[in-house]
Amino acid sequence: MNSTRDIDALIQMMAKLPGLGPRSARRAVLHLIRKRELQLTPLADLMQTVAATARECLNCGNVGTTDICDICEAEKRANGMLCVVEDVADLWAMERAGVFKGRYHVLGGTLSALDQVGPEQLRIPKLIDRVEGEGITEVILAVNATVDGLTTAHYIADQLEGRVTLTSLAQGVPIGGELDYLDDGTISAALSARKAL
Amino acid sequence: MNSTRDIDALIQMMAKLPGLGPRSARRAVLHLIRKRELQLTPLADLMQTVAATARECLNCGNVGTTDICDICEAEKRANGMLCVVEDVADLWAMERAGVFKGRYHVLGGTLSALDQVGPEQLRIPKLIDRVEGEGITEVILAVNATVDGLTTAHYIADQLEGRVTLTSLAQGVPIGGELDYLDDGTISAALSARKAL
Repeated sequence: MNSTRDIDALIQMMAKLPGLGPRSARRAVLHLIRKRELQLTPLADLMQTVAATARECLNCGNVGTTDICDICEAEKRANGMLCVVEDVADLWAMERAGVFKGRYHVLGGTLSALDQVGPEQLRIPKLIDRVEGEGITEVILAVNATVDGLTTAHYIADQLEGRVTLTSLAQGVPIGGELDYLDDGTISAALSARKAL
Repeated sequence: MNSTRDIDALIQMMAKLPGLGPRSARRAVLHLIRKRELQLTPLADLMQTVAATARECLNCGNVGTTDICDICEAEKRANGMLCVVEDVADLWAMERAGVFKGRYHVLGGTLSALDQVGPEQLRIPKLIDRVEGEGITEVILAVNATVDGLTTAHYIADQLEGRVTLTSLAQGVPIGGELDYLDDGTISAALSARKAL
């Protein structure tokens, strides 16, 4: 059974990706083998390229193919606002929304006593440097609304208190959301932050 | 926004795989970039290898890295039984079950008047050749229990009638299945094929 060894190895490797399991990995690999010219070869080439060029922005932690990412380089985004997110995926989500015109700072996780993640393991010292060095006037703490996320936000707020305006994203009912499907915490947050029509 | 062009292209390409969408493709790509040495580079290499070596078995249509697949080459599997499946994925599913000890024949689809798929587009002429040439005594038509699958099975049965024993997989209640969750057709098939305890 040696002739399918590479194919089996490819399936096992694909099955490790988040969102894929053994079954979907098999389907994906068969699909790729069928569309070898159009998909498998280009995909392999692109992965090689990305593996060779992808890097973290030295300034903000965003993922790109240059030492300093496009957002950090864009002159017109230097508007004094810095949006702090946990993860690159969160940065991308903010960018898709397309409303924030300042710069970002990616922490790379949250503080966690259990996992021994302290401020030094995150990009918190660099954040404090940037607030001083880039003339930041407002830091938006756009961390996830989890216990670890909020702990991290509190720690950062303590460090930066008095130096900049600190804000966080509003909490409430999502656009298009139905009350019936929301958890109690969200409803309670939305009620206490209610606003005049 | 040029520095992330390759990464964006990779995400778009991954999002086209069956079972992945834009969101899971983004997660998978970020995961791969974070585990570049351990996963992204080996995955890209493996894809290159498979793209260069994967081919269809000239005899049965299975996917492997040799002109004739391991199953067709294995002497001890020449037991006169041939299992006809629609797709390589079905062959793999049969092999995982590990109970069939004969050889396979992959049709590569089903007959379909609508999509203009005739016997020549499938591997049906080759199947008839093999039945003659390999001393086949039993052909198991393990096609999917869909309208197109059953039409194809009927066509093949017509072609091979009188030459070999023709069988199909039993239909009934899946092992571990609950009646309450089964469709009417399955229950009715299981009832009419009931057997003495």
